[in-house]
Amino acid sequence: MSNRNSKVDFNKLPYKLQLSENELPKQWYNLRADMKNKPAPLLSPATMKPITFEELRQVFCDECARQELDEVNAFFDIPQAIQDFYKMYRPAPLTHAVFLEKALNTPAHIFYKFEGNNTSGSHKLNSAIAQAYYAKEQGLTGVTTETGAGQWGTALSMACAFFGLVCKVFMVKCSYEQKPFRREVMRTYGASVVPSPSDTTEAGRKILADFPDAPGSLGCAISEAVECAANTPGFRYALGSVLSQVMLHQSIIGLETASAFEKYGIEPDIIVGCAGGGSNLGGLIAPFMGRKLRGEADYHFIAVEPASCPSLTRGKFAYDYCDTGRICPLSKMYTLGCRFMPSSSHAGGLRYHGMSSILSQLYDDGLMEARSVKQTDVFAAAREFARTEGILPAPESSHAIRVAIDEAIKCRETGEEKTIVIGLTGTGYFDMFSYQKFNDGVMQDYIPTDEDLMQGLSQLPEIG
Amino acid sequence: MSNRNSKVDFNKLPYKLQLSENELPKQWYNLRADMKNKPAPLLSPATMKPITFEELRQVFCDECARQELDEVNAFFDIPQAIQDFYKMYRPAPLTHAVFLEKALNTPAHIFYKFEGNNTSGSHKLNSAIAQAYYAKEQGLTGVTTETGAGQWGTALSMACAFFGLVCKVFMVKCSYEQKPFRREVMRTYGASVVPSPSDTTEAGRKILADFPDAPGSLGCAISEAVECAANTPGFRYALGSVLSQVMLHQSIIGLETASAFEKYGIEPDIIVGCAGGGSNLGGLIAPFMGRKLRGEADYHFIAVEPASCPSLTRGKFAYDYCDTGRICPLSKMYTLGCRFMPSSSHAGGLRYHGMSSILSQLYDDGLMEARSVKQTDVFAAAREFARTEGILPAPESSHAIRVAIDEAIKCRETGEEKTIVIGLTGTGYFDMFSYQKFNDGVMQDYIPTDEDLMQGLSQLPEIG
Repeated sequence: MSNRNSKVDFNKLPYKLQLSENELPKQWYNLRADMKNKPAPLLSPATMKPITFEELRQVFCDECARQELDEVNAFFDIPQAIQDFYKMYRPAPLTHAVFLEKALNTPAHIFYKFEGNNTSGSHKLNSAIAQAYYAKEQGLTGVTTETGAGQWGTALSMACAFFGLVCKVFMVKCSYEQKPFRREVMRTYGASVVPSPSDTTEAGRKILADFPDAPGSLGCAISEAVECAANTPGFRYALGSVLSQVMLHQSIIGLETASAFEKYGIEPDIIVGCAGGGSNLGGLIAPFMGRKLRGEADYHFIAVEPASCPSLTRGKFAYDYCDTGRICPLSKMYTLGCRFMPSSSHAGGLRYHGMSSILSQLYDDGLMEARSVKQTDVFAAAREFARTEGILPAPESSHAIRVAIDEAIKCRETGEEKTIVIGLTGTGYFDMFSYQKFNDGVMQDYIPTDEDLMQGLSQLPEIG
Repeated sequence: MSNRNSKVDFNKLPYKLQLSENELPKQWYNLRADMKNKPAPLLSPATMKPITFEELRQVFCDECARQELDEVNAFFDIPQAIQDFYKMYRPAPLTHAVFLEKALNTPAHIFYKFEGNNTSGSHKLNSAIAQAYYAKEQGLTGVTTETGAGQWGTALSMACAFFGLVCKVFMVKCSYEQKPFRREVMRTYGASVVPSPSDTTEAGRKILADFPDAPGSLGCAISEAVECAANTPGFRYALGSVLSQVMLHQSIIGLETASAFEKYGIEPDIIVGCAGGGSNLGGLIAPFMGRKLRGEADYHFIAVEPASCPSLTRGKFAYDYCDTGRICPLSKMYTLGCRFMPSSSHAGGLRYHGMSSILSQLYDDGLMEARSVKQTDVFAAAREFARTEGILPAPESSHAIRVAIDEAIKCRETGEEKTIVIGLTGTGYFDMFSYQKFNDGVMQDYIPTDEDLMQGLSQLPEIG
């Protein structure tokens, strides 16, 4: 690969490639409009046929249901109230990691798009405020949701407080126990928080009957939240990842990144992000992948997932339920099977059995690379990043940092001056339980055997 | 008071009055140079005479000792390495709190200077990086310090990691127990953390002998840290507040604030900050107070302290030891007596018996107002701020928010369009233990009786 930024004087760049408020994107970008191979449609669990708007609006608010199904319109106007809210914490900085570069002694140029400068501690707020806004506009009174690491639940709590909506959060039990302070942040914003699986829903009770000590999973908490919304008048369900509407809202990450790079005349070579359900990665790469699909430019995209929950690298591309309780729509995606229970000691935000259908299709089409990394290697990268660049990264984000460092070290060996951009989704302030294990040298890696994986993969639904 | 900003169209301001990187201050401002009544000199505990440079450099690194004693030079160049580090998280945003204004239905214009966008979660990093830099330049191998809420300890850990220095932190025991995750952040940055009072120092052992269940205090932890530094070759001590050198470094807060207001043609009426040792407030008001002292402009300065530890509003202006163990220099300041033990359940960063000698002198000269507020009122303000402006504030910072809201409500009643600026020192992510008490409705207020206060005040040293 030739050096496509040979004319850029990287030493003269500011530390942050800052956009001004009036350079904030006014539209979201819908990558599906530029995809030749569209993601397969969601299937209704009742009919096993492509889900209709009427079915979907029973679960999500109307506008979110519309956005979910729209594969045609490339751009959606961001409502003014959402633009105003975004100004509280956006534009998010795109930072030149000069101190990390120096520590690695690499000729690579490393940038990170940092989404952690808000109380939710992550990019999740970008979609939470949109989903809360549309619920409020429709005259709904509240929303339910699930949360893994707690970032999405916090984000939705903040958004609901802002618009005066009731918010009920089902929090994956092992995270609930590891992160009591996350719960308190949500409560401070007025949300109620229930550990999942719980005995407050049919789905929760069924899972508890089968697995009384279940540490919980995103798939299971989703089942509970969807059921609770369906049984509460004036409520709908909100989801923080996986869905195409979420990718749409999160495109603001990539749009800002692309604008800032354009402002300074830089083209990235490698774009790397962690992938749990895909919301951050899908948002970060959206405009760049659009250019690639339209043949305007090429980039090396890398999705990084935990070795403990390797849906892209070891899962199957097949229709599967989005939740453990099998009451949600089915999505064609890379999946480990909706009954897969990942180890509880690993990054909460990446412990999802499936993957965005958009990213799954792109990966299947060979447009993106995927790698899995071990948790201890991830925390080593996190610590190096914290000590050089100051920011204490979330374990989820640190998966991307790991691979970016690996790529920068390769550049040191080959002499290539690649430009790498990291999706730094958030901060690790509520993950100190995990950092403590790492600091104490007692953190363990969990890599499922093929047999472990067969448990989930053997139960995939037979479609068509 | 007339409306001094009648020509400003506040509706057309951006949400953040952002400075660019090249507008970052290149010098710190030393307020003492403009003070007619200089703060009284520090006294040596050995001689009870004004402390000399030779004595002071046994405790602090040489350049810090020089800065501590300098009352003449108004400006100090910020070394390039510190300017570079500042770019990681500065300029800090000066934000127009439009959502809070709307919620309060006030004609007042409220701004906040937010110092929490860094891993230490507060303004403390501004001085930590300076003190670490000068220690490194001098060829020292490490520093010791104390920390209350944990923000200063985290900041110094980050700074030491950046320059490759050893860092040993004595953490006030009740904070150590309430905030185990703060400890882990410091450890992640390579620091060692000891709960104080400890049996590792003579000072700690003495305090434990007198008060075996002591929850600790900043004054006590300072004694331990100073003793430890004195007994470790190549080490010096670093302090995060109270000292004049710290006020100097923290002037960057006020300088940026003043620049941003000038950029938009705004003059604040009220400048309000919390006051523990005074580092944030002293830094925030420095350039504005300079103008007032030079007769160029007038402002209403308000120092806000907890009712549980009311050094300005109920203390004495007298010489007192800076630490509980009485091994540190004496400072003429508003003090509750160095043996005063504040209630353990209140904002850790404001639990100091004394106050910056600069701020004490200004207060005694009638140039600044001081108010004390109750903890439950503070958390009510914190929650309102979190829900409207998104940021979950530190309990310390929320003292200033409380008074700013009170002033804005007064404006609603009088119709005055005052412009209020809040020093928002940091985030409350590690204070969820306290938020939980507030959310559960079990938070209590502690207001010492006159008798409680006499315990400390009756033991003030007799000077001269």
